[in-house]
Amino acid sequence: MVGNALGTKLVQNGHEVTMGSRTANNEAAQKWASSLGERAHTATFRDAAAFGEIVVSCTGGMHSMEALESVGVEPLRNKILIDVSNPLQQDKDGSVILGFCNTDSLGERIQSAFPATRVVKALNTVNCEIMIEPSRVPGDHNLFICGNDDDAKKDVTKYLSEWFGWKAENIIDVGDITAARGTEMMMPLWMRLFQDVIGHPHFNYHIVRGQ
Amino acid sequence: MVGNALGTKLVQNGHEVTMGSRTANNEAAQKWASSLGERAHTATFRDAAAFGEIVVSCTGGMHSMEALESVGVEPLRNKILIDVSNPLQQDKDGSVILGFCNTDSLGERIQSAFPATRVVKALNTVNCEIMIEPSRVPGDHNLFICGNDDDAKKDVTKYLSEWFGWKAENIIDVGDITAARGTEMMMPLWMRLFQDVIGHPHFNYHIVRGQ
Repeated sequence: MVGNALGTKLVQNGHEVTMGSRTANNEAAQKWASSLGERAHTATFRDAAAFGEIVVSCTGGMHSMEALESVGVEPLRNKILIDVSNPLQQDKDGSVILGFCNTDSLGERIQSAFPATRVVKALNTVNCEIMIEPSRVPGDHNLFICGNDDDAKKDVTKYLSEWFGWKAENIIDVGDITAARGTEMMMPLWMRLFQDVIGHPHFNYHIVRGQ
Repeated sequence: MVGNALGTKLVQNGHEVTMGSRTANNEAAQKWASSLGERAHTATFRDAAAFGEIVVSCTGGMHSMEALESVGVEPLRNKILIDVSNPLQQDKDGSVILGFCNTDSLGERIQSAFPATRVVKALNTVNCEIMIEPSRVPGDHNLFICGNDDDAKKDVTKYLSEWFGWKAENIIDVGDITAARGTEMMMPLWMRLFQDVIGHPHFNYHIVRGQ
């Protein structure tokens, strides 16, 4: 769902996009590509990562490492990888929890496994329809980005602005990749707000500052 | 610090407040009480809890259970207990983490140990100066409350409005006490914003809703 939304918007913006899957002929990916025309492609995770100048990791967070391991280190070397996922899973009682957190995060796991890749955690605190159209939520509201490479964070801030219309001043750099712990840990409250309070996923956090 | 801020504001509002400590003659508590006059008292945790019509648990979150266990079940029976604390601790590398989270929370631990007490988790996502003076942060911004007792949550919403000036419409009921997982897990991002981005603790989250 997230990959579909991001990929569609990027193709509509004139970019060439390759959607990666476990197999090159994944049915859902091919259906997505054929609906969008010649700039939309499908491939294995490995070939999609090799194709991209920029790689967006938007698999289910508990499966992201497996997908990226199937790519290997070389196709991702020196590239910006935007990690959009949260390691959500269902607990025994049916509630949604994080598979790991607090002293660990998906962002850190990716950066640790791919030290030559410039990992930027971003967009993981909003629903995919807000990711690509922030004006669905009125006024100012924030994204949080983090990563170890300052230039990569600046580039991603620029891309989020150009691609999706996020105002640069609403994108808050919260530090190195260990800050992904904090942004991924926003999910349990987000899920409550979504499921029990607001009833739809079109909302976002705004950090309001006093003095 | 939190108890001092809350207690002072409540005394200034005309309430009788007893500050609990491990010992009845705790020096910091006595200094606090003597600065405020005859409505401010000090006592052991047990006697303070017995004294209060409403009990506010605002010890350091990793020590809250120990303080409450020294009170015992009876002094807290049928009372509203507002749990303001977060179970923060320092990790080996110096970073601030939660001592437990995700499938557990301090709010749940208190409710589970004191089933006859009406536990409401509230105020734990803001600094103590914002707790007692929300107008330090301009415009609308939110508190999250949760607990198993709907009437207790309604009462606490009213108290937060009367005591501290929180607008009732900005206090979001996020469900039963297990929602404390989500509000306590807001702390790692809060700490980053405090320490690395904003540089002071006078900010808050506002949930902005779209359609």
